[in-house]
This record gives sequence, structure tokens and C-alpha cells, in this order.
Amino acid sequence: MQDLQQQLAFIVEMDRLKAVYRQTTVKDDKGRFENSAEHSWHIAVMAHVFAPMIAEPVDIHRACLMLLLHDIVEIDAGDTFAFASAADIASKADKESEAADRLFGLLPDSQASDFRTLWQEYEDAESADARFAKAMDCLLPLIQNMNNEGGSWRRHQVSRSKVVARNKYLEHSAPKLWEYALEQIDIALDKGWLQEG
Amino acid sequence: MQDLQQQLAFIVEMDRLKAVYRQTTVKDDKGRFENSAEHSWHIAVMAHVFAPMIAEPVDIHRACLMLLLHDIVEIDAGDTFAFASAADIASKADKESEAADRLFGLLPDSQASDFRTLWQEYEDAESADARFAKAMDCLLPLIQNMNNEGGSWRRHQVSRSKVVARNKYLEHSAPKLWEYALEQIDIALDKGWLQEG
Repeated sequence: MQDLQQQLAFIVEMDRLKAVYRQTTVKDDKGRFENSAEHSWHIAVMAHVFAPMIAEPVDIHRACLMLLLHDIVEIDAGDTFAFASAADIASKADKESEAADRLFGLLPDSQASDFRTLWQEYEDAESADARFAKAMDCLLPLIQNMNNEGGSWRRHQVSRSKVVARNKYLEHSAPKLWEYALEQIDIALDKGWLQEG
Repeated sequence: MQDLQQQLAFIVEMDRLKAVYRQTTVKDDKGRFENSAEHSWHIAVMAHVFAPMIAEPVDIHRACLMLLLHDIVEIDAGDTFAFASAADIASKADKESEAADRLFGLLPDSQASDFRTLWQEYEDAESADARFAKAMDCLLPLIQNMNNEGGSWRRHQVSRSKVVARNKYLEHSAPKLWEYALEQIDIALDKGWLQEG
């Protein structure tokens, strides 16, 4: 039963991701900040919805599991805003890697290793599965900000080029969505929700 | 681009599940109520963690997608407490079926039909995939309540037999977890977190 006790410890620990808040807001819940657990659910659903748009071979189920697991490191490392300072982003990788060791390490060895490897693949963003998963993680806040009159972009005075760079994963993974993202970014610039540059 | 517009409408609508609150609480976030979006994430992760425990042929990825989609009907129908009155539970099925028609109907036809069919399979709980998915949905609140000194069971004076009945999906799907659930239910009874009967 040792495996079961380890799995239960991991599942209980996961509850803490519901207390990690992001910069995006939930319009239909009084504009409160969104947490990383519900964000992870939303992008996992979105990956399945946009699966028919994928332009390269992707295992949608692997991509989905990456999305379900990718943010759990924030339980220890906290959420770093996508458009944070260079110093904050530089310190993020080490903190998250330590967090991945601890959190996946709660699981039985073989599962810990499988999940940790999948998490690393997502972080490296070199496989088609990881690129598509990353693309979903970056596209949802764009959709949310467009639906929230600029949302976190506007509050943090984010520039157009940063949002374009962040959504680049879409270019090869799902070109129709890339085209859509570029159109939306132009609209946001026109409305003053994004800064020039 | 009509398909894309429909998919986007669905994704934006999904945000509303983050405003549907359940009876379970999040211990690590000041004991606030849990919402159905973050709950769906948690059980989808849990399904992957407990996949090695499954005792019958289950497609874990189909079960995972069921879990990601199963609660979205609550956007229209609200959350019905698992141990609500018979009248409330009787009216639940019709409300949720209408909600499924409307919400999946936002998607392009073929995707709407695929997702609606998967949702119905989950509700019917007759396939091995659906039984395992249902088992995960029922087991997580047990784990949470045991970790919250009785939680929603204690607040609503729920009886032992109701929790046993609710977790029956585990019996064939994952017998080791069924054994664990029965042990936990006995502990809860001893502690006065569940009522006799």
C-alpha cells in the first residue's frame, strides 16, 4: 500500500494549486483573479477543442496531460507573470525545477519519473506535443484579455511585440490560430489595450 | 472561419464554470468553497495518478476527457450537492440534459456531437471508461473531506450508507481504491464525521 499512500499525498498536495493566483481575471466571477488549477482545466479543454486545427503530428492526450501537470510547480515557486521583469523570469527556471523534483517526488518512483520527464518536455518546448501545449497556455490569456477589455495587458502596460513573441508557438503548430492571434493583437493595439513596440 | 468563431464562443463560455461553487472547501485557500472548474482539473490529474490501479480495460484518455467535460452543464444547471434531497436530484437530469444541448451546441456540429455523446456516456456510467471517471469524481470529495475533518459530510450530516453507495463505482473499476474508501468511511464514522445508517 506504500504506492497508494504516496499517490494520496500527491493528490492532497495538488489542492494547493487552487490557492495560486494569476494575473488574468474571471469576468463572470466578479472579476476576481484566476487560479492556476482552473486555468489548467481550461487549457486542457481548449486543447481538445482546437485539436482539429493542429498542423503537425501531435498526440493530443500527451499534450493534455502536459497541460494538466505543467503548472503544479507553482505550488512551491508561485506564478510568474508572463511579462514579468527579465530578472524574475531568469530566477523562475531554477525555482520551478526544484519544485518539480519535490512535487513529482511525492509519487512512487516510476510515476514520478514519467511525470517529471513529461513536465520537462513541456518546459523545453521542442517536441510537437509540447509546442501545441505551450501554444494553448499562451493563447487562452489572449482570448481572456480580449474579452476583458485588455485585462492583464492593460494593467501591466504590455507591449505588442511581447505578446506576438509569446504566441509564436502557434505559428507552426496551428497556423489558423496564429493568424487569429495576430488579428486580435492588432485590434488590441488599436484599442490601446497593448502598447506600441 | 465559422468553426473557429464557434470554438471561441465555447471556450469563452467555459470561463463561467469557474463561478460555480461546490460544497467541498479548499483547505489551503482559507477554507473557501471549491469551484467546479478546479475540481475538474483535480480529478483529471487524479485519474492519471490512479490509472495503474484500474482493474478492467479503460482508455484513460477518454476517461480524462469525460472528466474535463462532465461538469460544464453546471454553467446552466448549477451544482447539485451529491447528497441533496431526492426531489433536487430528480430534477437534475433534465436540467443538465438541456444544458448539455445548449453548451455543446455552441461548437461546430461534429465536435458538438462527439462531446455530447461522451458526456452522455459519462452520465450513463455503463462503460468501463465512464465507471472509472465517475469513481474519480466521487473519490476526490472523500479524500478532501477526510482531510478537512469531515468537511461537507459533517456540515450536511451525511450518512455512511450514502457515501458507500456513491463510491460503488470503485468496486469493479479499482478494487484497491474501493478497499481504501471503505476503510476511510469507517474512520469517518468513528470520528463522528459521518452519521450511522
